[in-house]
Amino acid sequence: MNRLLYGVAYYDEYMPYDRLDKDVQMMKDAGINVVRIAESTWSTVEPQDSVYDFSHIDRVLNAMNKAGIHVIIGTPTYAVPTWLVRKYPDVLAITPSGQNQYGARQNMDISNPHFRYYAERVIRKILEHVKDHPAIIGYQIDNETKAYNTTGPDVQKLFVQYMKNKFVTLDSINRAFGLDYWSNRINSWEDFPSMVGSINASEIAEFSKFQRQLVTDYLQWQANIVNEYKHPDQFITQNFDFEWRGFSYGIQPDVDHFAAAKAVDIAGVDIYHPTQDALTGTEISFSGDVARSMKEGKNYLVLETEAQGFPQWVPYPGQLRLQAFSHLASGANMVEYWHWHSIHNSAETYWKGLLSHDFEPNPTYDEAKTIGKDFDRLSTHLINLKKHNDVAILFSNEALTAFNLFKFGWGSNTSYNDELRALYDALYRMNVGVDFVDPNSKNIENYKLLIVPILYAAPDSLLQRLNRYVHNGGHIVYTFKSGFSNQNVKVRTVRQPGIISEACGIYYSQFTIPQNVGLKGGFFSAASNSVRNWMELITPTTANVLAYYDHPVWGKYAAITENKYGKGLATYIGCMTTDSLTEKILADVVHKAGLWGAAQSLHYPIITKSGVNDKGKMVHYIFNYAAQPVTITYPFGNGRELLGDKAIAQHSSMVLDGWGVGIVEEE
Amino acid sequence: MNRLLYGVAYYDEYMPYDRLDKDVQMMKDAGINVVRIAESTWSTVEPQDSVYDFSHIDRVLNAMNKAGIHVIIGTPTYAVPTWLVRKYPDVLAITPSGQNQYGARQNMDISNPHFRYYAERVIRKILEHVKDHPAIIGYQIDNETKAYNTTGPDVQKLFVQYMKNKFVTLDSINRAFGLDYWSNRINSWEDFPSMVGSINASEIAEFSKFQRQLVTDYLQWQANIVNEYKHPDQFITQNFDFEWRGFSYGIQPDVDHFAAAKAVDIAGVDIYHPTQDALTGTEISFSGDVARSMKEGKNYLVLETEAQGFPQWVPYPGQLRLQAFSHLASGANMVEYWHWHSIHNSAETYWKGLLSHDFEPNPTYDEAKTIGKDFDRLSTHLINLKKHNDVAILFSNEALTAFNLFKFGWGSNTSYNDELRALYDALYRMNVGVDFVDPNSKNIENYKLLIVPILYAAPDSLLQRLNRYVHNGGHIVYTFKSGFSNQNVKVRTVRQPGIISEACGIYYSQFTIPQNVGLKGGFFSAASNSVRNWMELITPTTANVLAYYDHPVWGKYAAITENKYGKGLATYIGCMTTDSLTEKILADVVHKAGLWGAAQSLHYPIITKSGVNDKGKMVHYIFNYAAQPVTITYPFGNGRELLGDKAIAQHSSMVLDGWGVGIVEEE
Amino acid sequence: MNRLLYGVAYYDEYMPYDRLDKDVQMMKDAGINVVRIAESTWSTVEPQDSVYDFSHIDRVLNAMNKAGIHVIIGTPTYAVPTWLVRKYPDVLAITPSGQNQYGARQNMDISNPHFRYYAERVIRKILEHVKDHPAIIGYQIDNETKAYNTTGPDVQKLFVQYMKNKFVTLDSINRAFGLDYWSNRINSWEDFPSMVGSINASEIAEFSKFQRQLVTDYLQWQANIVNEYKHPDQFITQNFDFEWRGFSYGIQPDVDHFAAAKAVDIAGVDIYHPTQDALTGTEISFSGDVARSMKEGKNYLVLETEAQGFPQWVPYPGQLRLQAFSHLASGANMVEYWHWHSIHNSAETYWKGLLSHDFEPNPTYDEAKTIGKDFDRLSTHLINLKKHNDVAILFSNEALTAFNLFKFGWGSNTSYNDELRALYDALYRMNVGVDFVDPNSKNIENYKLLIVPILYAAPDSLLQRLNRYVHNGGHIVYTFKSGFSNQNVKVRTVRQPGIISEACGIYYSQFTIPQNVGLKGGFFSAASNSVRNWMELITPTTANVLAYYDHPVWGKYAAITENKYGKGLATYIGCMTTDSLTEKILADVVHKAGLWGAAQSLHYPIITKSGVNDKGKMVHYIFNYAAQPVTITYPFGNGRELLGDKAIAQHSSMVLDGWGVGIVEEE
Repeated sequence: MNRLLYGVAYYDEYMPYDRLDKDVQMMKDAGINVVRIAESTWSTVEPQDSVYDFSHIDRVLNAMNKAGIHVIIGTPTYAVPTWLVRKYPDVLAITPSGQNQYGARQNMDISNPHFRYYAERVIRKILEHVKDHPAIIGYQIDNETKAYNTTGPDVQKLFVQYMKNKFVTLDSINRAFGLDYWSNRINSWEDFPSMVGSINASEIAEFSKFQRQLVTDYLQWQANIVNEYKHPDQFITQNFDFEWRGFSYGIQPDVDHFAAAKAVDIAGVDIYHPTQDALTGTEISFSGDVARSMKEGKNYLVLETEAQGFPQWVPYPGQLRLQAFSHLASGANMVEYWHWHSIHNSAETYWKGLLSHDFEPNPTYDEAKTIGKDFDRLSTHLINLKKHNDVAILFSNEALTAFNLFKFGWGSNTSYNDELRALYDALYRMNVGVDFVDPNSKNIENYKLLIVPILYAAPDSLLQRLNRYVHNGGHIVYTFKSGFSNQNVKVRTVRQPGIISEACGIYYSQFTIPQNVGLKGGFFSAASNSVRNWMELITPTTANVLAYYDHPVWGKYAAITENKYGKGLATYIGCMTTDSLTEKILADVVHKAGLWGAAQSLHYPIITKSGVNDKGKMVHYIFNYAAQPVTITYPFGNGRELLGDKAIAQHSSMVLDGWGVGIVEEE
Repeated sequence: MNRLLYGVAYYDEYMPYDRLDKDVQMMKDAGINVVRIAESTWSTVEPQDSVYDFSHIDRVLNAMNKAGIHVIIGTPTYAVPTWLVRKYPDVLAITPSGQNQYGARQNMDISNPHFRYYAERVIRKILEHVKDHPAIIGYQIDNETKAYNTTGPDVQKLFVQYMKNKFVTLDSINRAFGLDYWSNRINSWEDFPSMVGSINASEIAEFSKFQRQLVTDYLQWQANIVNEYKHPDQFITQNFDFEWRGFSYGIQPDVDHFAAAKAVDIAGVDIYHPTQDALTGTEISFSGDVARSMKEGKNYLVLETEAQGFPQWVPYPGQLRLQAFSHLASGANMVEYWHWHSIHNSAETYWKGLLSHDFEPNPTYDEAKTIGKDFDRLSTHLINLKKHNDVAILFSNEALTAFNLFKFGWGSNTSYNDELRALYDALYRMNVGVDFVDPNSKNIENYKLLIVPILYAAPDSLLQRLNRYVHNGGHIVYTFKSGFSNQNVKVRTVRQPGIISEACGIYYSQFTIPQNVGLKGGFFSAASNSVRNWMELITPTTANVLAYYDHPVWGKYAAITENKYGKGLATYIGCMTTDSLTEKILADVVHKAGLWGAAQSLHYPIITKSGVNDKGKMVHYIFNYAAQPVTITYPFGNGRELLGDKAIAQHSSMVLDGWGVGIVEEE
Repeated sequence: MNRLLYGVAYYDEYMPYDRLDKDVQMMKDAGINVVRIAESTWSTVEPQDSVYDFSHIDRVLNAMNKAGIHVIIGTPTYAVPTWLVRKYPDVLAITPSGQNQYGARQNMDISNPHFRYYAERVIRKILEHVKDHPAIIGYQIDNETKAYNTTGPDVQKLFVQYMKNKFVTLDSINRAFGLDYWSNRINSWEDFPSMVGSINASEIAEFSKFQRQLVTDYLQWQANIVNEYKHPDQFITQNFDFEWRGFSYGIQPDVDHFAAAKAVDIAGVDIYHPTQDALTGTEISFSGDVARSMKEGKNYLVLETEAQGFPQWVPYPGQLRLQAFSHLASGANMVEYWHWHSIHNSAETYWKGLLSHDFEPNPTYDEAKTIGKDFDRLSTHLINLKKHNDVAILFSNEALTAFNLFKFGWGSNTSYNDELRALYDALYRMNVGVDFVDPNSKNIENYKLLIVPILYAAPDSLLQRLNRYVHNGGHIVYTFKSGFSNQNVKVRTVRQPGIISEACGIYYSQFTIPQNVGLKGGFFSAASNSVRNWMELITPTTANVLAYYDHPVWGKYAAITENKYGKGLATYIGCMTTDSLTEKILADVVHKAGLWGAAQSLHYPIITKSGVNDKGKMVHYIFNYAAQPVTITYPFGNGRELLGDKAIAQHSSMVLDGWGVGIVEEE
């Protein structure tokens, strides 16, 4: 890719009147150089079974091409047309709540043969029609794909087959999953029950894994179709999204991102986040780091992010700029708004685009014009930013699913991503750049420091690999519950934390829920040290105790430990700590790993991100995530501030506006 | 009607032993002169298919007639008998939760042919049997009728037919409702999906309108049947109710009251409200104003209101009297308690009547005796009170449904009636009498001041009519979101507030959710001025700004404006204000409209209501809605206080007991 | 029984590897002398239809026998195997939520003929196989049995038959249940509707009674089968449980404990309760008192109680001992932990046993070793403790069900057990020993003081019996709502509290929900006297008023009264009082009943329990339910403290550790 992309999702078919030429002109004015079109409009493209109407696609392709705006074509498969549902009601997924009803998107069973047949046909028809159009730079296959908890009888058959393939015999399942409990043994494949009613976490976790596999397989299937048509210089991407808590929050529980991303050429994501006083940049950074890690450091596309967004997200002056450059600073090569114009009907009427419903210029659009201009001007300096991080977070969908099935006990609302984000956010505030790895990553050993939240379910091989990693000189930070159960969510039958006890130099046999429990120990005397949700009653063997519990009964047990093991150091956090203490622990670890550098002289709300550009030069982004202007001491090498086009020397003063941005390219 | 009616709902068939004569005597002692009977007792009247038993009806009719007590006969159709459900299970409505189960009332599909057939038969049988009985003064058709969210396949067929009639072509629906979004296009009538799964507010709002039409049609159908039997001096009424929030709160979302009331001769309503320390009279006034407006100012019947009610509603001494006269003050000609005796079994055991389960006199009954005496004594002074109001609230079921589908965004709990009631309540506290009008009202132009809460969905014609109203000298107050979408809940494609921008002299393109936002501007400096839930970022064109937002970023935008337009004045409130500020704004508007009068010298908890009686004299009710006695200055013309039968001069002192009542008939 | 039993539930079939010999050795080390096995493992015992595998049972029986450890065999019927569900899907109960799904235990219809057939077969097969094994001391039939709200068509047929048998004619049902209301009359047996949709509390309460009868019948049916095999020196028991609020809270709503216990030889229960700082001993005492009362004072078995339990229940040092002796002090002859080892898979992974998942000794296990030793050493002193109490609480499943259908009105969350526990807990804190009786108990008249919470539904005969009880010299305490309705949940048609008005010397006709209401009257001036949830507006006839309401309007009504009636005294509490005031009222009543004794010189957190042992000597347990050590004055006769084996004289000092125990056998 040789040009920063600045784009919008565009829906000509939603327009209340013909605006195409006017829209194209307004896009040009704003520096928009790419649009994504056509996803989720199956009923427009194929209004009746085998009746096709490509007029909206053609109109837009031609207009964009004429204007020099690139187009990404989305396959339309994530919302099914009425006629398909009437002909084949079985395309609607059966979930634990019954069969889905027509209306919403993402209501289909992605493994259903009728759905697959008609989806393939419409994809091929579109691609045959558009494939040679010069405006097209790539394809997005489906959108925010998941298995949508499909669990009906047909899916059950696929699952039983999956189980046969994986476990071969029922005895091995009964043993691995502990099915003697509550008379759950399965003694004949014919008796294999639906997992919908299961109370066995091993079964449920396996079924979730199977559902994630359906997503991986489905995306590969679509990619294979598109690959038959696409030109070598075009790409395939998917719009991956994150755990949704009203905004992009954490690791997506329903998709194995790294596995699924193998189907695409470039990773794509959507990133939505709070703004106004609540804008911190954390979600932009987090989601970007995950996206960049999907293809081991390759630059990614932000296929959707908010312009005005929800009513409560209308950006303050400066914020849209700050956000746009923050995406680039994490390695994005494209920033695309969802969407161009606000929609006049239906569910997302109040999820506003760059334009309001009146299509008039507005302050948000006006600010976009400055971004488009700067993207264009600085494209060669900012595109294809390469980042080198020494710190990685090891996440695991298996651990996430398994932990979330138990959490901290019945009634607990805290889940895996809460802890993962607590760790991530502490590093973000300290300007420690991180990558993400998962248990299948080949590059784990490349990192100097590995952060491992709640590795609740893991095979022996992974834990042994992590022991070796430390032994060979790696630094690692585990949190509570890591190592607790194996890959089948069977709790280990040895003293906890099982295999990693060796590297951590500790053991525990009991744990409880803290009530009025603090921490004690010189190291932590100053920080806010109350303990939440969980505490393991740890006894060190070879470990050094960083903190004991402060409690009349539990005071003899260790809470946080570190242990030299071989050439490395393993830190174990046996309880859920406050945000400020989490940051203190990690700062200590970063220091010990020899990774405390210039970037750490800045601290949130000043955020800095660095990388090497196509010219081989270091680029430093410096963001002020606060409303007040601020003067900082610029900590990196001499260079040129690109936005203001002004030289800047190391250790000189640098002024940042409220919600301001500076970008320095070193000499 | 020539006699104030004081009544109870009476259920001889529920009696644990024969008490008819005793009950009649106790009613006579309390001045009860009317009873409503027979509604919801189909299984008693027709215990088996085509087996009838009118004995309870006959017993009561004869006993009441002998005692000179009138009877209103309710048709029994709002609860179906067991045998009908067994024979035709399809009479039970299918709703989005599945098919209803037998047990509760109001579980049927009012459009079901089997239900209609048997309902008509039992109505005719009863009417044939009773029609010439001299005790009967009128009929109540059904009770609190709604469509009960019936959505099954038969209803779907009716809906599709309704859509064909209304929109003629699918293309016009697809365009009007924006169905290209999420592949929702309907390209064949056969494919028309159920609205149960819809995510399109235009579809859902249209289906709600269709459901309200079912109610209107059903009541007309029952009225037509009853009209074949009723004598000219008898009336038909319905018991309309209100949005229920544990009491009668707001406009009924499921019925077009004004349309449905065309079927009846006299409007009837039930009104339930908190009492004890929480008694304010607001619901009595609000519900009465709506009821009176149903037939353009005609007097109405309170067919149900509480005696003891819920356990928490047992009235303090004086409150039952205060309530009864408050109903008359709003224009009621009847006050009827639900119900005579507390029920010994089933769901409403703790919804107590005038008598407790012991049938003994009690303090509430004893107080009713004084009311009955005064109603009888003062009947000719108080009956048929005619009210003339210069202020009206324009409500709209279309706007209500449409706004409530979005509210202030996902997760918002604030709905249309919250804002309507905030405006109504402010006027109530200031003793500004109001009528209600809806978009089909012919008399809108008769008012000097029109209050228009959240007119979210409205056709061009209505908005143009309102512009003309202002131009011709009317005063209008709009709140936020008015004019935003058309009658199909399609957001207007011009700068907001669209058509009414002309009268209001403002525009806006963006809006957000206030966080720590206040108001500034000399006018409002003193009042509690924090802004809640919603704020539009308004720019005035010709308007005068009454308040700007007080916020570092949004401070340049207007929050509240007024604009001279032609001979009139249009006030626009672009945010949700505090109750005290709402009152301040409306007080200002009332002054400017030249409507600030004598009644406004009193303020809640002193409430005053006026009207002209059958003798052509002004009658002023003055209520003390507080526990403490109070002395006020009587602000109206010289007259006679009717309860104490004492002359009173203008500007003289008047003493009101705690929860006390005064009624002055001017000379 | 001639030996205190100290046991664990043991699941050899759940073991991840063969540990039997190791486990037996560790059990011996801890003094475990009984294990319960085999319940809920039907799919292990009968892996396929009529294929049996008793190997786990045989292994354990032989190993235990060799080690001198007794075995209780549980029938495996409370969890059904996969093959049975596949063959006969109708074994899964249909509830108001639809048909149950496979997975959880207790999902079957216990009245289903297929379930009964296969359950009987597997029970007989097991019993035939094991019946002569010398290790077996008894059988547990099923586990925590309930009807699980089974409501399908087959159950409906049984219910209609039950109704025919009980009421003979529909007219008597219609009359008794008030079915004219809302057209609910049933005029043909064929029309009898399912109770699932019922809104009639009389119907719902009767159906609940029928469901409880299903439990009683089912347990008798299982007992009859087992009785064909068991030896005369073996017992049958059931594991009854309590209303569950995250722990054992109150009377079990779904089982008539006293009726159901007729099927068994020895009552058995499970008792779970909070620990750590929240350990009070109340649930151990409460559940034990109910269990002991099931068979009129006979000693009972604690078949399950927590060892480590939930993560938040890991016991502090000393608590496991305190709990164990507390069970004995209430009359238990066995304390058995659920369970030996923590489970490595499925729903109860975090409900930990005596051993953690690592099977290693841990502090909880180590403390159990001291208990086992003391149980063994003191067995002859502590076994078969007989208790004589002069105070009983009269509970009623009919009253519980009926009250809970109404509570204090729609939206109320307070239920029958809240009030029952408030009264029980006050007595517990005062060390007043209580038994439980229910309306069918023959021994009610044996007690000097009867506490009667919310006897909401009761036949005339019971209320007349209670009047006679007082007249003959008994002391009684009624709370609000007692006597209100008859056995069919029909409210009485006389002044309340109806029949018991005679003994109580009061009446009321109105009641309300207190808002800012206190109590006044010399007697109660000092105590915390705010009134919650409910207040009856009482007028005394012959009663003495203990407290009036403190409120501007309700101040003239009595809140708490006492009345001499014949030779006895009836106290009536017409409102829900604070815990401290409840205790004050009951203290006064205990004094007046002449029951204030030595035990009352101690008060929670010092708890004392007494009884007569097999040697005919008085035994006094003294518990310190607090973390701080304490010195008390020993109030009972001279004796020997058994744990320390030291003489102790009356009125001498006695030191108790934090969470400490003393046991004195009088000389």
